[in-house]
Amino acid sequence: MYNVKVYVTLKKSVLDPQGVAVKDAAKSMGYVEVEDVRIGKFMELKVAKSDRDIHEVLNEMCDKLLTNPVMEDYRYEIEEA
Amino acid sequence: MYNVKVYVTLKKSVLDPQGVAVKDAAKSMGYVEVEDVRIGKFMELKVAKSDRDIHEVLNEMCDKLLTNPVMEDYRYEIEEA
Repeated sequence: MYNVKVYVTLKKSVLDPQGVAVKDAAKSMGYVEVEDVRIGKFMELKVAKSDRDIHEVLNEMCDKLLTNPVMEDYRYEIEEA
Repeated sequence: MYNVKVYVTLKKSVLDPQGVAVKDAAKSMGYVEVEDVRIGKFMELKVAKSDRDIHEVLNEMCDKLLTNPVMEDYRYEIEEA
């Protein structure tokens, strides 16, 4: 079994209205130190071992299911459970 | 300036319908190896140095703004920019 962590972030060129909203809220709450906020997804997966290469499975799943390749980048970390 | 990464995850006891939906979709697409999916938030913040302790600022912000303390846990990593 693998424990996989997937980090999905918006591409640098893509505006992040949610991040802007959180930054503005933080400033209005007095956290003036906050200069930028970018919000993405963090996924924790349990993936059983199989005859398929784990990187192949993860890259395919990220491209087809877990991310929007036009607007998002991803990276992942694999750990043996 | 600090580069901060915040990881927000649902508490173990909280059901994750979004994660269940993604897991079922993955299986229906043929990724039968996927046994569990938990989905959270991943935030990247730029925080300027100030006279306030960075941990104090981050813990307060996480509790009051970035997370729902009833249902979510968080951890963060700080890097000097």
